[in-house]
Amino acid sequence: MTTQAPTLKNRQFRLAARPVGLPKNSDWQFDEAATRPLQDGEILVKILYISLDPAMRGWMNEGKSYIPPVGIGEVMRAGGIGKVLESRSPRFQAGDVISGVTGVQEYWIGQADDRAAAFHKIDPGAAPLPAYLNALGMPGMTAYFGLLEVGQPRPGETVVVSGAAGAVGQSVGQIARHKGCRVIGIAGGREKCDFVVNELGFDACIDYKHEPVKQGLKTLCPKGVDVYFDNVGGDILDDVLTRINLKARIVICGAISQYNNTAPVKGPSNYLSLLVNRARMEGMVVFDYADRYHLAVAEMARWMKEGSFKTREDVVQGLENFPDALLMLFEGRNFGKLVLQVASE
Amino acid sequence: MTTQAPTLKNRQFRLAARPVGLPKNSDWQFDEAATRPLQDGEILVKILYISLDPAMRGWMNEGKSYIPPVGIGEVMRAGGIGKVLESRSPRFQAGDVISGVTGVQEYWIGQADDRAAAFHKIDPGAAPLPAYLNALGMPGMTAYFGLLEVGQPRPGETVVVSGAAGAVGQSVGQIARHKGCRVIGIAGGREKCDFVVNELGFDACIDYKHEPVKQGLKTLCPKGVDVYFDNVGGDILDDVLTRINLKARIVICGAISQYNNTAPVKGPSNYLSLLVNRARMEGMVVFDYADRYHLAVAEMARWMKEGSFKTREDVVQGLENFPDALLMLFEGRNFGKLVLQVASE
Repeated sequence: MTTQAPTLKNRQFRLAARPVGLPKNSDWQFDEAATRPLQDGEILVKILYISLDPAMRGWMNEGKSYIPPVGIGEVMRAGGIGKVLESRSPRFQAGDVISGVTGVQEYWIGQADDRAAAFHKIDPGAAPLPAYLNALGMPGMTAYFGLLEVGQPRPGETVVVSGAAGAVGQSVGQIARHKGCRVIGIAGGREKCDFVVNELGFDACIDYKHEPVKQGLKTLCPKGVDVYFDNVGGDILDDVLTRINLKARIVICGAISQYNNTAPVKGPSNYLSLLVNRARMEGMVVFDYADRYHLAVAEMARWMKEGSFKTREDVVQGLENFPDALLMLFEGRNFGKLVLQVASE
Repeated sequence: MTTQAPTLKNRQFRLAARPVGLPKNSDWQFDEAATRPLQDGEILVKILYISLDPAMRGWMNEGKSYIPPVGIGEVMRAGGIGKVLESRSPRFQAGDVISGVTGVQEYWIGQADDRAAAFHKIDPGAAPLPAYLNALGMPGMTAYFGLLEVGQPRPGETVVVSGAAGAVGQSVGQIARHKGCRVIGIAGGREKCDFVVNELGFDACIDYKHEPVKQGLKTLCPKGVDVYFDNVGGDILDDVLTRINLKARIVICGAISQYNNTAPVKGPSNYLSLLVNRARMEGMVVFDYADRYHLAVAEMARWMKEGSFKTREDVVQGLENFPDALLMLFEGRNFGKLVLQVASE
């Protein structure tokens, strides 16, 4: 027989309204529930870290996408890391540290094999926990499979990545370097640019806030662009389209510049460059590669151990700061993978 | 010794100015030159038919593309079919009918193996000559390799093609039917729609001038769109993007709706559907497949012989009508592959 945890206060952020443009405070309901006794097969998880991702903005919209929207009144969906406090499932034991879709709250209760939560055990000794929401989590998997499977870079080719200091961008650039490519980042501000060049080993970085991207690409990609990993969309996508090579591959991973638009999305005016250059633009969703995540984790963890792969997280403290922390993403105020720390390990 | 042809008047259309928007009469110079005696290796060709293609609009613009622009003062580039009147080359004999890049003029003189002209002999007995500018020429090659190599349709899939009654569209739809696909055309006007369904065997056709394309796609593609072969761009591309399936392939062959824009090209606002659907959009240029044209010609000529592949040409008479005939394309006034007959066979 296991000890039963006492009833705990579980603070939660629920979606109160579908945002128009940037999410406002009134789009959230900050609620308090209580935990309940577990039933057979269930676990109680104390959430430690919550991942803040651009994709969350899309989940708040009505309409068909690659995943159903978060319903009004539901706890906001988010990836996270937590510690199992109590288990009535053979899958996990109390004390296990697990990663999955925890939602924006303090505790998670449900079946250990819940499909939407998709929990799996992680090794807290192998890397700092926030890294499991970064290179060893969804952003890293997105970077790895998006770049290698969709972008298909070859040694010696030029890879450009936008959002270069962000969670996905960091990994894209470092993976591309490991595969023998020349890597040019695009990021906002000198500090982020210096970081990806000096700390992560990118060949160069364009500060889109202070220099014209088109000119930067011309100077820094004298042999043109073979692979563009796009996290931002908008004008930068159009600028890159003017510099692509024959048979270039553009990986459409996201378009953070467009997620809070109230006007229609700006489509890439220069898309006919795809025709002229026999190039392609292809979308990707990381879940498609779930059966091979372990291979990517193994390779990146090895690089991290060898010191040739770094990650940077931007950790904000306190569940109550979730609404503002999310806005940091869309305003480019985060520096590195943005993580909300909900409780201490 | 070969007989030397007398000096002939050679009427020519030269590019006088780079058009802004639709080409105007003042963008052309209608000139008269004279033929000259041949030198070693040269041929004199009497041009019979000239091909009018949407791509010609792009060749009139300054700037880097898949082929250099036509220079100001140069004879306008065009594909054509002609008869060899005189030859000082072993490659062709007087009387041969050849196809290549003749330009918009009455006679062509130059080296028989001129790379830009890329002449090759055709068999006037196997098909009517205009068919060599249609299914057995560039439009057919574009349709064949664009659809099969880039679109990669599988039996049972749904293929949508815009400009369905045009030169490329006709062939795309029929090739897709031959490969076991369900084919939906998009064309302007009931007459063109009826033609592609009743004459060419498309499964259905949406008349974009008289019905909303989005609604038409919803009704006619209940299982979604697997391959979209895009000849037009603009709003129709956006409409199709809302109906694509997982792993759909969009072949960017052209964007006739945008070629005469004075405003920037309208990029596809719905391009993030590529992400949601892990789909791709890829450009193609027919010249890349030149070493396999003969395979496509063989297969399509066989279908034509069997009666299971039809072509329709819209033949305008008289070189002097070139400027207006070209406008027919951009205004959708042609019905079938548009050809200018310059001289009788």
